[in-house]
Amino acid sequence: MKKLRVGILGATGAVGQRMIELLSDHPWFYVGEVCASDRSAGKSYLEAVNWRMTTPLAPEIAQKVVQSCRPPLAVDVVFSALPKEEAMRIEPEFAAFGLPVISNASAFRMHEHVPLVIPEINPDHTHMILEQQERKRWKGFIVTNPNCASIGVCLPLAVAQRAYGLRTVQVTTMQARSGAGFPGPSAAVIDDNVLPWIGGEEDKLETEPQKILGSIEQAADFSVSAQCNRVNVSDGHLECVSIGLRSKATAIDFISELQNFRPNQMVSSLPSSPSPAIQVFLEEDRPQPKLDRHVGRGMTVTVGRVRDCPVLDLKFVVLSHNTIRGAAGAAILNAELLLAQGFIKRD
Amino acid sequence: MKKLRVGILGATGAVGQRMIELLSDHPWFYVGEVCASDRSAGKSYLEAVNWRMTTPLAPEIAQKVVQSCRPPLAVDVVFSALPKEEAMRIEPEFAAFGLPVISNASAFRMHEHVPLVIPEINPDHTHMILEQQERKRWKGFIVTNPNCASIGVCLPLAVAQRAYGLRTVQVTTMQARSGAGFPGPSAAVIDDNVLPWIGGEEDKLETEPQKILGSIEQAADFSVSAQCNRVNVSDGHLECVSIGLRSKATAIDFISELQNFRPNQMVSSLPSSPSPAIQVFLEEDRPQPKLDRHVGRGMTVTVGRVRDCPVLDLKFVVLSHNTIRGAAGAAILNAELLLAQGFIKRD
Amino acid sequence: MKKLRVGILGATGAVGQRMIELLSDHPWFYVGEVCASDRSAGKSYLEAVNWRMTTPLAPEIAQKVVQSCRPPLAVDVVFSALPKEEAMRIEPEFAAFGLPVISNASAFRMHEHVPLVIPEINPDHTHMILEQQERKRWKGFIVTNPNCASIGVCLPLAVAQRAYGLRTVQVTTMQARSGAGFPGPSAAVIDDNVLPWIGGEEDKLETEPQKILGSIEQAADFSVSAQCNRVNVSDGHLECVSIGLRSKATAIDFISELQNFRPNQMVSSLPSSPSPAIQVFLEEDRPQPKLDRHVGRGMTVTVGRVRDCPVLDLKFVVLSHNTIRGAAGAAILNAELLLAQGFIKRD
Amino acid sequence: MKKLRVGILGATGAVGQRMIELLSDHPWFYVGEVCASDRSAGKSYLEAVNWRMTTPLAPEIAQKVVQSCRPPLAVDVVFSALPKEEAMRIEPEFAAFGLPVISNASAFRMHEHVPLVIPEINPDHTHMILEQQERKRWKGFIVTNPNCASIGVCLPLAVAQRAYGLRTVQVTTMQARSGAGFPGPSAAVIDDNVLPWIGGEEDKLETEPQKILGSIEQAADFSVSAQCNRVNVSDGHLECVSIGLRSKATAIDFISELQNFRPNQMVSSLPSSPSPAIQVFLEEDRPQPKLDRHVGRGMTVTVGRVRDCPVLDLKFVVLSHNTIRGAAGAAILNAELLLAQGFIKRD
Repeated sequence: MKKLRVGILGATGAVGQRMIELLSDHPWFYVGEVCASDRSAGKSYLEAVNWRMTTPLAPEIAQKVVQSCRPPLAVDVVFSALPKEEAMRIEPEFAAFGLPVISNASAFRMHEHVPLVIPEINPDHTHMILEQQERKRWKGFIVTNPNCASIGVCLPLAVAQRAYGLRTVQVTTMQARSGAGFPGPSAAVIDDNVLPWIGGEEDKLETEPQKILGSIEQAADFSVSAQCNRVNVSDGHLECVSIGLRSKATAIDFISELQNFRPNQMVSSLPSSPSPAIQVFLEEDRPQPKLDRHVGRGMTVTVGRVRDCPVLDLKFVVLSHNTIRGAAGAAILNAELLLAQGFIKRD
Repeated sequence: MKKLRVGILGATGAVGQRMIELLSDHPWFYVGEVCASDRSAGKSYLEAVNWRMTTPLAPEIAQKVVQSCRPPLAVDVVFSALPKEEAMRIEPEFAAFGLPVISNASAFRMHEHVPLVIPEINPDHTHMILEQQERKRWKGFIVTNPNCASIGVCLPLAVAQRAYGLRTVQVTTMQARSGAGFPGPSAAVIDDNVLPWIGGEEDKLETEPQKILGSIEQAADFSVSAQCNRVNVSDGHLECVSIGLRSKATAIDFISELQNFRPNQMVSSLPSSPSPAIQVFLEEDRPQPKLDRHVGRGMTVTVGRVRDCPVLDLKFVVLSHNTIRGAAGAAILNAELLLAQGFIKRD
Repeated sequence: MKKLRVGILGATGAVGQRMIELLSDHPWFYVGEVCASDRSAGKSYLEAVNWRMTTPLAPEIAQKVVQSCRPPLAVDVVFSALPKEEAMRIEPEFAAFGLPVISNASAFRMHEHVPLVIPEINPDHTHMILEQQERKRWKGFIVTNPNCASIGVCLPLAVAQRAYGLRTVQVTTMQARSGAGFPGPSAAVIDDNVLPWIGGEEDKLETEPQKILGSIEQAADFSVSAQCNRVNVSDGHLECVSIGLRSKATAIDFISELQNFRPNQMVSSLPSSPSPAIQVFLEEDRPQPKLDRHVGRGMTVTVGRVRDCPVLDLKFVVLSHNTIRGAAGAAILNAELLLAQGFIKRD
Repeated sequence: MKKLRVGILGATGAVGQRMIELLSDHPWFYVGEVCASDRSAGKSYLEAVNWRMTTPLAPEIAQKVVQSCRPPLAVDVVFSALPKEEAMRIEPEFAAFGLPVISNASAFRMHEHVPLVIPEINPDHTHMILEQQERKRWKGFIVTNPNCASIGVCLPLAVAQRAYGLRTVQVTTMQARSGAGFPGPSAAVIDDNVLPWIGGEEDKLETEPQKILGSIEQAADFSVSAQCNRVNVSDGHLECVSIGLRSKATAIDFISELQNFRPNQMVSSLPSSPSPAIQVFLEEDRPQPKLDRHVGRGMTVTVGRVRDCPVLDLKFVVLSHNTIRGAAGAAILNAELLLAQGFIKRD
């Protein structure tokens, strides 16, 4: 089976690098073009990048000539790791040019006709593409994945929503430095410290889950209150969550629901789909970012400390790897879904 | 005015060291005896201690001979920095011997006739001493201060309780390493990590505030849900709080109440009483442990990010220095209060 | 080809865990028995260990029953990750029992008839085994690898020794926390700090290189001065080295010698032998522990900043992964060498 | 006695902030003007600065209007915390304008007629001022202090030079982040890492000591080889040093010389002169940055681990606080010396 040729927008940034790392040896995709700012265009990727992954940069990527982020681009699909403002301008150009744009950017996540997808939860939302193409008169399209802090919490929330109905969600995040890109915060700022604020993050966490857990037509009806903090951790967002339910449940029930959660058959068989999608810890001091962020090669969401909440109904802790499950891996999993569903086409 | 002679139980530990540091140049108290385990007794304090404060150890303390933690002890008042189990056994011996015991330990905090005091909030709770002495037939007594994570949050909670009535409290803590004493967690464990569990801590945080904010006769009627985390910060507990109120209030109202908070005149004039007791930040990214833990020489509680909560009513962030306001300084402030109230007597 | 069955002594410690990780999928060896203290013996490995590797613990290892560290043991070869004192007592018992003991411990490194081997440098030193067996009347034997801080520096030293002759070596180390085992230093001790002393380390670094770079009969004739520091790095020992030579050389010459270094053919073809054995950086700010410790899956020694020294002749920086190249991987590479040389026998 | 009015150039930077902190309550100087880039000029200092000191910013400084870094300036003396390039241009303007310029910048340190002064070592070098003024036809002058990594090591070197004569010096530094200014290196770069290179630093360390330890006419005759590393420490440069002597000495002799070191009477009585100037630790694991950087309010240089060197003659470890003894405090001490000597004049 011929692999599809991928163009990566924002290929020199932290998420772009992670995409390149995750696509090495991917069974369906390979990196065809690396695109970055005009300042980098024309250089070799090796010259343009400050490679920060711990796996070595593959020579065939190192020697690629960096392209500008604009069509035409001789690829089958585009993965966007662009910052919001650039995504706003550039992603529609590629969609109009006729390419599927699988975006990690926040620019279009909440747009009415743009799917915001976690394959294990709402794979059917990709059907928004049809209306998107019709209205925009695009041959390509844009599909997005959620914010790095939303993805982790959405998996257990989806389980609770289906089993009991969600009424309210309180979430306090302790987010890793890599969520701020590279170079991210200075050691003088973040070492021996916690920053009790991340610009724009709480808004995303208070609105994206309702879209993801809703239907194509309508957002789900529950409220979310988020408090977002940056901690001195390299990778892995840890979140403390309390939830209010529409029908009561015990912690033991919910643990059982989490353990029995399986995505649908098509999603389970995607190459980047982790098994399990959710892993539950019964130890009282897990999950921990350092020990558990790599579970399922960074794609499994881990949950622990499920217990009763004296104020709402249940509380628990959730961890996900923010640049894999929360960004690059999320985009790749979405692309896999779209290929399996036929929205991305082989020639 | 003659200074009172203090005996410190657990003088070689992290909290004991901080007590010694804070009592150097204290206008009312001086360190008369340093007491520790039988293993240390008989050594000079210099030999027995692994001094970790950044201010140098005073020579007159260094040369003191460490005493065992048992009466008799030729002091006017005892400050206890003992671990819970030892406090349980040792503190009553000193109270029975006739000494005031000002304890930072959790052993007796929730005991019916033991005051659990934050002078700015419930200075009258010290009157429980009378019943305590009568029932126990003690000439001395035990007074406690709250857990390091309870103290910080109780100040803004007390303001909300008085102004609007509290119904519910959700709190997620990010607690400093020094809360685990010395040496505390290994770097292999806590570096690049968050530990989502601190043994016994959530229970304390879910029960102490109601006693502190209640009357002598009755605990206050609100529920608290706590999630406690250990982060890689040296000092300073940061907590994200959401509160449900009995009568509605805006964030602006609450900021104003916090800014106008003043303890009573007697408490304000105590030597360790900070001014202000609560400092409110309007900047969106404060308080931060590294920048703000030293406000008011570590005794001021700082609050920031006061805003509406989509789930409960209001949310905010609170920071306090866990070994000063949350432990050693809290005990000293309690002792000052008791002296001002006449419970601790000058000869 | 049938794999050889390995018994790991000290299997629950940091180096033991790393050995287990490195032996998963090894082409010649597999973990047959895991041995630890009598306190752990009888438990499953999963119960006995606090698994700290980032790769998951294989189920077939997890369920093994931990054995005591004493013969008999039904294995073909023993890898020792014991502390020095226990190695002193236990390793001879296994050698006497008839097993090859491949040891990472310091107990016998400097013993006259015990080989201290880095396969790329002194593979012939294994012939000391013959005299060792004769004198001790052992059917088994003991072979050791150097201290974690010695191994890295010995590779470029060997190149300099062969090319120019060594006269003097000055080395200042900045050693990772994992060199102190698990849990290692408390964060309160090592965070925001450097410890300018590591017990016993400077002695090892001042004596092991001469044995390794010498002949079987005689240690090499150069002096080493070491200053050893512990820094707050998880893995990877970085060392600043200045060397005095017997015949002068320029930095460019030495870089060229380092780049051309190849171990002998037998050693190059060992499964754990990295290619290259030494990698030279020409960038002015490399190698760095975080970026370069994983080169060659942790077995390559990286060298950078080769330049003239105003006091001796040349100076440079060297980095090696202390628990892989400096411990577990070193032992495994030694075992591979011994199997290739026939000292370890297939039945 | 009327205090002298100081203007601080580069007042918003890390060293400028430290100068302001150290000048609060100074008996001879007070901050009259704060000068910074044209971008900051005209703002209040509070608006212009990102205050990072742990002591609070004094209100009278906070409200000062930031001035541009150019004369005229209504002050008695100027302290320069400018970057090298700006110092090169700006400091001569102030000297020409008639003001004493006490500079922490490297721009003129090695200039033939500019004193490079550590008052405890070469207070007489200030007499270069006379020739400087004559040749430049300045009424003011420029006096500099050494690089932050030079100052610490120069104190024990001066002791060795006087007692035994120095031949060679090998020094490997482990330098704190604050040496790179604010914000300094990203946590993604420096956390869990050591950077084996600091631009320009080794050159300074290999040339400044000879000027400082020489006479006005001639640099001292010894060679220095430096290897400079950045470690993840907030403050405090730790350095491992080996020295070759002209006449032999034992470690015990040298310890005794270090302990007996006293600057001349005039220097000892300066307000910022620490007592002792050099403190020797006999414990094997000291000095440590975290524990010992504050000795003598950051002005004492601490030395430990004095022992024989197998390659040169003696080796030891030295620690100094890089932004106090190594920068802001060094400049203030120089200004005090110049006032005591009459080079800075009271009206």
